[in-house]
Amino acid sequence: MTATKNIEALRGAVKSIPDFPKAGIMFKDITPVLSSPELFSQSITMMCAPYQNKQVSKVIGIEARGFIFAVAMALQLNCGFIPIRKKGKLPREMVAQTYQLEYGEKTLELHCDSIQANEPVILVDDVLATGGTSSAAASLIEQLHGDIIGIEIFIELSKLSGRERLKSYNLHSLLQYED
Amino acid sequence: MTATKNIEALRGAVKSIPDFPKAGIMFKDITPVLSSPELFSQSITMMCAPYQNKQVSKVIGIEARGFIFAVAMALQLNCGFIPIRKKGKLPREMVAQTYQLEYGEKTLELHCDSIQANEPVILVDDVLATGGTSSAAASLIEQLHGDIIGIEIFIELSKLSGRERLKSYNLHSLLQYED
Repeated sequence: MTATKNIEALRGAVKSIPDFPKAGIMFKDITPVLSSPELFSQSITMMCAPYQNKQVSKVIGIEARGFIFAVAMALQLNCGFIPIRKKGKLPREMVAQTYQLEYGEKTLELHCDSIQANEPVILVDDVLATGGTSSAAASLIEQLHGDIIGIEIFIELSKLSGRERLKSYNLHSLLQYED
Repeated sequence: MTATKNIEALRGAVKSIPDFPKAGIMFKDITPVLSSPELFSQSITMMCAPYQNKQVSKVIGIEARGFIFAVAMALQLNCGFIPIRKKGKLPREMVAQTYQLEYGEKTLELHCDSIQANEPVILVDDVLATGGTSSAAASLIEQLHGDIIGIEIFIELSKLSGRERLKSYNLHSLLQYED
């Protein structure tokens, strides 16, 4: 299959669910992609493509669905996998970053010894919406002086302008949706 | 390296953290295994070994750390990956199972269309403690009439007797700890 056909097949598999988890949100359900070995492995190959000839040392995934893509990319690129976790899950010395959500706030954490200064890393998440989560995650990596050579996103919700907030990074998304 | 040397290297990498997340718990921190491409890929190869000549259709991982091992196994075995999620995260028709924790209770959910009747599947989690979580997850799969051909665990906390609770299954753990 060509890349264009792969993208069409992926778009066909992602299910749009209106009003989940609440009214007005068009949720993107990626589980049909993950349950297909062909679609999932094609997705990972495409997400890894920009890094095939680059030196990457770690792939960093954001809890929980970011883990899915980041683990797969780490294995394909022969890199280590590093989790960025929700508050209270990591047991050793860590950096933390709190950010605002529509209602309330959220904190992400990263072990201090997980990244060395200047280490080339990729940050991975499943969905880019307003960019609040990716931005907080990038800030954690930079607190440890990691070198973010790219941000890889499975689905970009273009209307929410997360890309604008992350414009200082080399960001790619596999699928883009207006709604 | 021989399998025995691999196991020794893995044991050396897992960090035991006393009194996390609360007094009396000896937490097993697996992040140093995940950050090493060699240790992580060796772990996955060993966890997949019992299934190399068996027909497996899906690998099912329990949120959140179970995703890490289940995704890697699914890719190696060329199977689909299915997430069992915490309450409120899955958008479509699902089965749910509530189980008791030391304080309070927890609910796990699984999409109804994720497994066909008699489909051969593997259930995967990072840690087996009392077996409450794995047991609830297995029950979800059986509500959908999936055929659980094995349960794969990265770390088994032997003293907590989770294996006893799951004795009707073909359960393997890569590392066993008494404390």
